[in-house]
Amino acid sequence: MNSNLCFVCKTIYSQVYFKSDEVHACIVTCGGLCPGLNTVIREIVCGLHYMYGVSKIIGIDGGYMGFYSKNTVTLTPKVVNDIHKRGGTVLGTSRGGHDTSKIVDSIQDRGINQVYVIGGDGTQKGAAVIYEEVRRRGLKVSVAGIPKTIDNDIPVIDRSFGFDTAVEEAQRAINAAHVEAESTENGIGVVKLMGRYSGFIAMYATLASRDVDCCLIPESPFFLEGKGGLFQFIRKRLKENGHMVIVIAEGAGQDLLTESMQSMGQQDASGNKQLQDVGFWISHRIKVHTFAIRADFGLTVMIVADPTYMIRAIPGNASDNVYCTLLAQSAVHGAMAGYTGFTCGPVNGRHSYIPFNVSIALSLSLSPSRIGMK
Amino acid sequence: MNSNLCFVCKTIYSQVYFKSDEVHACIVTCGGLCPGLNTVIREIVCGLHYMYGVSKIIGIDGGYMGFYSKNTVTLTPKVVNDIHKRGGTVLGTSRGGHDTSKIVDSIQDRGINQVYVIGGDGTQKGAAVIYEEVRRRGLKVSVAGIPKTIDNDIPVIDRSFGFDTAVEEAQRAINAAHVEAESTENGIGVVKLMGRYSGFIAMYATLASRDVDCCLIPESPFFLEGKGGLFQFIRKRLKENGHMVIVIAEGAGQDLLTESMQSMGQQDASGNKQLQDVGFWISHRIKVHTFAIRADFGLTVMIVADPTYMIRAIPGNASDNVYCTLLAQSAVHGAMAGYTGFTCGPVNGRHSYIPFNVSIALSLSLSPSRIGMK
Amino acid sequence: MNSNLCFVCKTIYSQVYFKSDEVHACIVTCGGLCPGLNTVIREIVCGLHYMYGVSKIIGIDGGYMGFYSKNTVTLTPKVVNDIHKRGGTVLGTSRGGHDTSKIVDSIQDRGINQVYVIGGDGTQKGAAVIYEEVRRRGLKVSVAGIPKTIDNDIPVIDRSFGFDTAVEEAQRAINAAHVEAESTENGIGVVKLMGRYSGFIAMYATLASRDVDCCLIPESPFFLEGKGGLFQFIRKRLKENGHMVIVIAEGAGQDLLTESMQSMGQQDASGNKQLQDVGFWISHRIKVHTFAIRADFGLTVMIVADPTYMIRAIPGNASDNVYCTLLAQSAVHGAMAGYTGFTCGPVNGRHSYIPFNVSIALSLSLSPSRIGMK
Amino acid sequence: MNSNLCFVCKTIYSQVYFKSDEVHACIVTCGGLCPGLNTVIREIVCGLHYMYGVSKIIGIDGGYMGFYSKNTVTLTPKVVNDIHKRGGTVLGTSRGGHDTSKIVDSIQDRGINQVYVIGGDGTQKGAAVIYEEVRRRGLKVSVAGIPKTIDNDIPVIDRSFGFDTAVEEAQRAINAAHVEAESTENGIGVVKLMGRYSGFIAMYATLASRDVDCCLIPESPFFLEGKGGLFQFIRKRLKENGHMVIVIAEGAGQDLLTESMQSMGQQDASGNKQLQDVGFWISHRIKVHTFAIRADFGLTVMIVADPTYMIRAIPGNASDNVYCTLLAQSAVHGAMAGYTGFTCGPVNGRHSYIPFNVSIALSLSLSPSRIGMK
Repeated sequence: MNSNLCFVCKTIYSQVYFKSDEVHACIVTCGGLCPGLNTVIREIVCGLHYMYGVSKIIGIDGGYMGFYSKNTVTLTPKVVNDIHKRGGTVLGTSRGGHDTSKIVDSIQDRGINQVYVIGGDGTQKGAAVIYEEVRRRGLKVSVAGIPKTIDNDIPVIDRSFGFDTAVEEAQRAINAAHVEAESTENGIGVVKLMGRYSGFIAMYATLASRDVDCCLIPESPFFLEGKGGLFQFIRKRLKENGHMVIVIAEGAGQDLLTESMQSMGQQDASGNKQLQDVGFWISHRIKVHTFAIRADFGLTVMIVADPTYMIRAIPGNASDNVYCTLLAQSAVHGAMAGYTGFTCGPVNGRHSYIPFNVSIALSLSLSPSRIGMK
Repeated sequence: MNSNLCFVCKTIYSQVYFKSDEVHACIVTCGGLCPGLNTVIREIVCGLHYMYGVSKIIGIDGGYMGFYSKNTVTLTPKVVNDIHKRGGTVLGTSRGGHDTSKIVDSIQDRGINQVYVIGGDGTQKGAAVIYEEVRRRGLKVSVAGIPKTIDNDIPVIDRSFGFDTAVEEAQRAINAAHVEAESTENGIGVVKLMGRYSGFIAMYATLASRDVDCCLIPESPFFLEGKGGLFQFIRKRLKENGHMVIVIAEGAGQDLLTESMQSMGQQDASGNKQLQDVGFWISHRIKVHTFAIRADFGLTVMIVADPTYMIRAIPGNASDNVYCTLLAQSAVHGAMAGYTGFTCGPVNGRHSYIPFNVSIALSLSLSPSRIGMK
Repeated sequence: MNSNLCFVCKTIYSQVYFKSDEVHACIVTCGGLCPGLNTVIREIVCGLHYMYGVSKIIGIDGGYMGFYSKNTVTLTPKVVNDIHKRGGTVLGTSRGGHDTSKIVDSIQDRGINQVYVIGGDGTQKGAAVIYEEVRRRGLKVSVAGIPKTIDNDIPVIDRSFGFDTAVEEAQRAINAAHVEAESTENGIGVVKLMGRYSGFIAMYATLASRDVDCCLIPESPFFLEGKGGLFQFIRKRLKENGHMVIVIAEGAGQDLLTESMQSMGQQDASGNKQLQDVGFWISHRIKVHTFAIRADFGLTVMIVADPTYMIRAIPGNASDNVYCTLLAQSAVHGAMAGYTGFTCGPVNGRHSYIPFNVSIALSLSLSPSRIGMK
Repeated sequence: MNSNLCFVCKTIYSQVYFKSDEVHACIVTCGGLCPGLNTVIREIVCGLHYMYGVSKIIGIDGGYMGFYSKNTVTLTPKVVNDIHKRGGTVLGTSRGGHDTSKIVDSIQDRGINQVYVIGGDGTQKGAAVIYEEVRRRGLKVSVAGIPKTIDNDIPVIDRSFGFDTAVEEAQRAINAAHVEAESTENGIGVVKLMGRYSGFIAMYATLASRDVDCCLIPESPFFLEGKGGLFQFIRKRLKENGHMVIVIAEGAGQDLLTESMQSMGQQDASGNKQLQDVGFWISHRIKVHTFAIRADFGLTVMIVADPTYMIRAIPGNASDNVYCTLLAQSAVHGAMAGYTGFTCGPVNGRHSYIPFNVSIALSLSLSPSRIGMK
């Protein structure tokens, strides 16, 4: 067990740290749903089983909180055989509920020595803390994170799983909005898509659709009134074309929502800022504006209600399934080689192991740890 | 041109009232979108053209209001060839805007002698008034209605177009709700479906899905608290199963929404009562209840946001396309035979012509009129 | 247990013949795949369990042959919960393999007293023979058939399950053929669809698509050469339109295939006549013809290869799922009431029990039997 | 107009060679269908119009042969607005028909100065010859190729359009094969996929599906009999699992088809070797083998008939639409900058201009030409 100086490394397969019959792996999924979750679970199980002969694999039920409960799910290739065709996660999920000490107690009590944590930003931070505690107690346990964000907003990796499926599925909502808008005079279709802090889904869905007139994302501030404002653009497009489609990421225009401050500042269980529903807000503002300027304008604003839940809950498409497979197998190779405290993902086209502190801090100066090393 | 005593009649094709080159037909679509609208338009055009050699067919742009504008759309088999593969209506639509006198002026000025009106309840009432005015002025104009209601809530006819497609598409939302609910402890998926005054879509979607625990419809009153109430049922199902899916028609439980009376009584342009959003209301009530009874219950309520717009805007499925074709051809045969003041549709399996006053009053005692008859 | 004089009867639920804890039901699926098979299985299980409290239900593995093997599948609502979302049959299927004596031995040995047989024509004949043998031995066993034919070709019932799904899915192949044909000069798309002895799928798929120029079915003979022949029609359509789509049912034009008699007369395991592949034959004949008449005609014949397997293997759509549920529950009510030797299905809109000899002979003069009656 | 020494260059947009009102562009599509063709057409038109103000754009009808006919299609943003939602090519296509001299005459006569050629290997060679002739005649015409191969088999570029859609759509056929195979004892599903000289579609579809037991591709020879042969593997898998799925690329195992040499050596119009249908061949061989070794084996071989035409004819998915847009815009930028004799595509992640001779020879030593340069 020695340190590895190169940051982006390929696992040297001959350096397998764990013996097959020693491995007792567990998998946990946390946070919101994302297409491909079940594929990742399936391929960790199949990777461990078929590539390394591991047979003791359990699923933690219902996110981090599941570590405290007695029940776990036994995972075999047969059990997971068809799960990638279903949306959601067969293991269940939850937000929050992270008590590091109790989780590591549970890991220790059960004799688990490989922990695969699939989840978003908060979940990976939780995994980092688990890793620190595991290290502090001197346990020979590999903690591997598989980053999950449907928003594709992790700068260090090239792509996150579920994103391609989400962009594809978003087409359905945009197309419906387009049809509605086109069928009505001065029809405006508004589609709210996922993206709290980044507009990748909204942007790619816009590029793929070719039906969208305006795409509003968190990265690019905008204003409503006056020259160069959104209202001016809307009036122009309606005049030219008679109808339009606006795609808005859920985190766009948050600075403009100050009128409704009262509901701001609330937190959900995972600590994400409870964002105002920007889809309803923008459509309300457009309605009020167009009513004010021309009472007989006959403007119809149509909200194609937020397809978020319908997008999150579908299975991964072909492209995401291929990607999830590589990601899961990469995590398995890393853990079997004795690496720990890492997330994995493609960096400039190469599947890489990224230390938790790097993936969190986005600084790229450190190497991943291996079990027992300082 | 003689009266027809039997109510449900088959057109006697030899009794063609109009000569092909005399016919000047127009088609208008009104009200909300519905899968199959474009198929009906296509088949009226193709039916008139291929079965009767009619070549003067125009589309009125944007609902009843389009009668006042100068622009119309020339409709030929070539123009409508692919439209059934698209959602919405190529003619555009609108609500309200009905000025009988101006509309009949427009019909008279343009020399139109066949008017095909595709629309819902309000639209058919409008068509009935147009028919009365046409009759009063002694014009030889056939006014034919094709009933449109995605809700399948016209008692006199067996089925309305778009309904089968809507039930099919609703599966997607129900499935997403099921996946979300199943992935979370005490997860509740709520799917709001169309149905202001009837629960057919909600019921059929529930029967087809087999994943729904509870279906709430306008026809069947329910209450929330106490024995036999919804909350009790929810607690029971969560205890048994850990998750559940509720389907609610938009018009269900309206009597229970008295707390928020201020927004009641509003009317939209077509005169439909502006219903409160029952999906948000019910999920809010469930949240409050479960929080009250057990603060640490950890209940998650998930709303699969109303798929209404995504359902309305898709093209008809195979079954609806076959049905729309028969419906459109039936209307064409009726108008060509000189019938007027009728809607058409299958009654006990037979395509029938139903006088406007019957279809509105739901009394079945009268026969449809033919042009020039008293 | 008394005879029932009216042929089309509704089960009188109060007359339940079996006690819940006495029932030992088995389900078997035979013959080719059909959308909705798993829904029927699911709803027999759920119907028996939730409506009558039956808990002993087994699945026979792999068709009639499975009666001879030791292994059966225990069926509970939990086991069948999600199967309706998958194509195929979870019980497996096979053709032929019917040995009446051994099957009834197996039924007797296992103590089975309700046999649900899901299958086509040959399978129902097999069920009739099982029923006769059961009767001869004086066993109190109800034998219920659920008719399966994707082709919708059972005259006595209104509709067969899977048909609506098949018509819907066939649109995909027709659309592809249309796109291919339209993209090429003199392009001809040929789509071969199911239908050995009937053209319902081909006809409905043609009506739904509106892209098909010519639909060839077994019920309607045609010829190739000369006036009024297919070749003349093809030349006409290509001249008018530049491309065309032909849909052909697998049993159409069988009389014209006499040139290739050598492969005729072969039988598959279920005894169906091995039909020549009519799709390849017709496209070959068209190629030869167009080459003969005009060598530089540049005609391209494109075969959209037979989508049969892709249609058969999908799950039922919403409409078929509703129908399968009613069908399965109808069978359960019948068997629980002590009826035996019947198939079930809607006759003129009413779910009915049809004696095996009637459903086979298509004569409508007899009533279904009840156990123990003569 | 000066030469450009760096091979992979980004267009310097300030160096626009053509004036907007001088440009007379034409677009031609050749060879087989591919998802995304219409998106490429749309985005060349929209790119020229919105980015450079070009208004004279025509479509050549039906491939290279269309240059000799009088009719062309006027292309405007309005005309192409919705075409990306349809499969095929709105311009029509054909194979072969390339007469360089007549084509360049047509270009010269019509005053065309930008030629966008979308097509496969043979088409690009044709474009190269057109470019040479244009150069020889000293015409100021930019000839730009957009490489089309659904098989993703162009080594120099990272990806070809339509590939991602093809892999996605192939899942449907693989899934059907899996369902069929799983429902029958010893069921074998065989899916033949595209890929004459490369197995990328087969491989990616296999990786994405996770249901495939064996994937046979042209790059990897195999044999049938004996140790390590396909038959041995099939027997093993059937014994273990009871059913299996084989994916075979159309060009796999060509060396094994020597028994049926008579049909070899035939050429289709584009000069591709007419490959034997490997799907039917392999399933026939498996049938014969399993019959020989065990007459009572009861083996069922099921062919899921080649989904090729159904895959080719669908519109591009979201991912391909984004890619086609970038590709088309890249071609437009290159031609507007005065580059000629190039194809375009991403090379190591960067959109690049590749001289025809390079893309054909796959040597990477040359730079693309600009008009008028030597």
